[in-house]
Amino acid sequence: MKILLIGASGTIGRAIADELGSRHQLVTAGRNSGEYRVDIKDLASVQALYAAVGELDAVVCAAGNVHFGALAEFTPEQYAIGLQDKLMGQVNLVLAGQHLLRAGGSFTLTSGILTHDPIVYGSGASMANGAVEAFARSAAIELPRGLRINVVSPTLLSESLAAHGAYFRGFETAPAARVARAYSKSVEGAQSGQIYQVN
Amino acid sequence: MKILLIGASGTIGRAIADELGSRHQLVTAGRNSGEYRVDIKDLASVQALYAAVGELDAVVCAAGNVHFGALAEFTPEQYAIGLQDKLMGQVNLVLAGQHLLRAGGSFTLTSGILTHDPIVYGSGASMANGAVEAFARSAAIELPRGLRINVVSPTLLSESLAAHGAYFRGFETAPAARVARAYSKSVEGAQSGQIYQVN
Repeated sequence: MKILLIGASGTIGRAIADELGSRHQLVTAGRNSGEYRVDIKDLASVQALYAAVGELDAVVCAAGNVHFGALAEFTPEQYAIGLQDKLMGQVNLVLAGQHLLRAGGSFTLTSGILTHDPIVYGSGASMANGAVEAFARSAAIELPRGLRINVVSPTLLSESLAAHGAYFRGFETAPAARVARAYSKSVEGAQSGQIYQVN
Repeated sequence: MKILLIGASGTIGRAIADELGSRHQLVTAGRNSGEYRVDIKDLASVQALYAAVGELDAVVCAAGNVHFGALAEFTPEQYAIGLQDKLMGQVNLVLAGQHLLRAGGSFTLTSGILTHDPIVYGSGASMANGAVEAFARSAAIELPRGLRINVVSPTLLSESLAAHGAYFRGFETAPAARVARAYSKSVEGAQSGQIYQVN
């Protein structure tokens, strides 16, 4: 398969590349790294990326920013960061890609454990994740030509424990290599409309 | 209790007013109807509403627009309608109200069955609903002074079957009076962080 991987330079993205790279042709893209530059917030930038990359069997997105902060001080503009980037960035990949992917191809997006298991300061992430998951369940029933869509919802990465563990006390962590297998299941399997929780 | 009801002129809003009005002091607000005018998309408009209404024990929102359309033709601007109105409109009520409600007060927001049970043309509603629900679960653990937040997720209203039933074939409907009891449970009960599904 020819697979477009967005966010290949992140911890999850590198693990996905390790998992899928040996069996498939990977094309990488990102804001500041990868073979192609793309700003997923901008539908025109996403469309230009697809035009440059050519035919594809799968799109995997492990990119998407959100703002973290106290609910008491959160602003609409701070929620918009996650809505524009983690939510609509990933949605833009589907809106443009649904017309381009080869029959039977797949989209695999990323949400996160905070959809259902919130932390203090995490309301912007929870919001964006919940929207991504509900969008994917809905898009799954409208995609044409056998195209599929799934979401991987990882817990805190083991690799991120040192940096972010204080905000996730008591959460089980998962190594990025294990999270990457959920992307493999989505891309190389046949399911659609699923949320793969990796806890 | 003194309860602010947004969207009191809609089918659900009228049923909520019937359910809660005999036991509590209701203050109604809406874009085009009710005792007060408010555009919930605009945080400043929400803040002005709270200043005009004065002290409150509960806020109930049964308002929020989304766009319906085919995934193949959906645009980012059309998703933004639901994100700005049904999602951020309701979030604005919480952002401003968390500093103002009396201790132990509550917010009750509205999502809908499409979060988990999608229909064709419904990806904008699913997205907004999923975000509202995940936001509420997260906000519940950060609200101060014993404030609570819940979401009511109704199926298609029996009263809407004639107008919208063709898009919801096979779905059970619920009369607005039954949906209104879920708002009563949220406002007059003591739970928080719950999604009350009325199917």
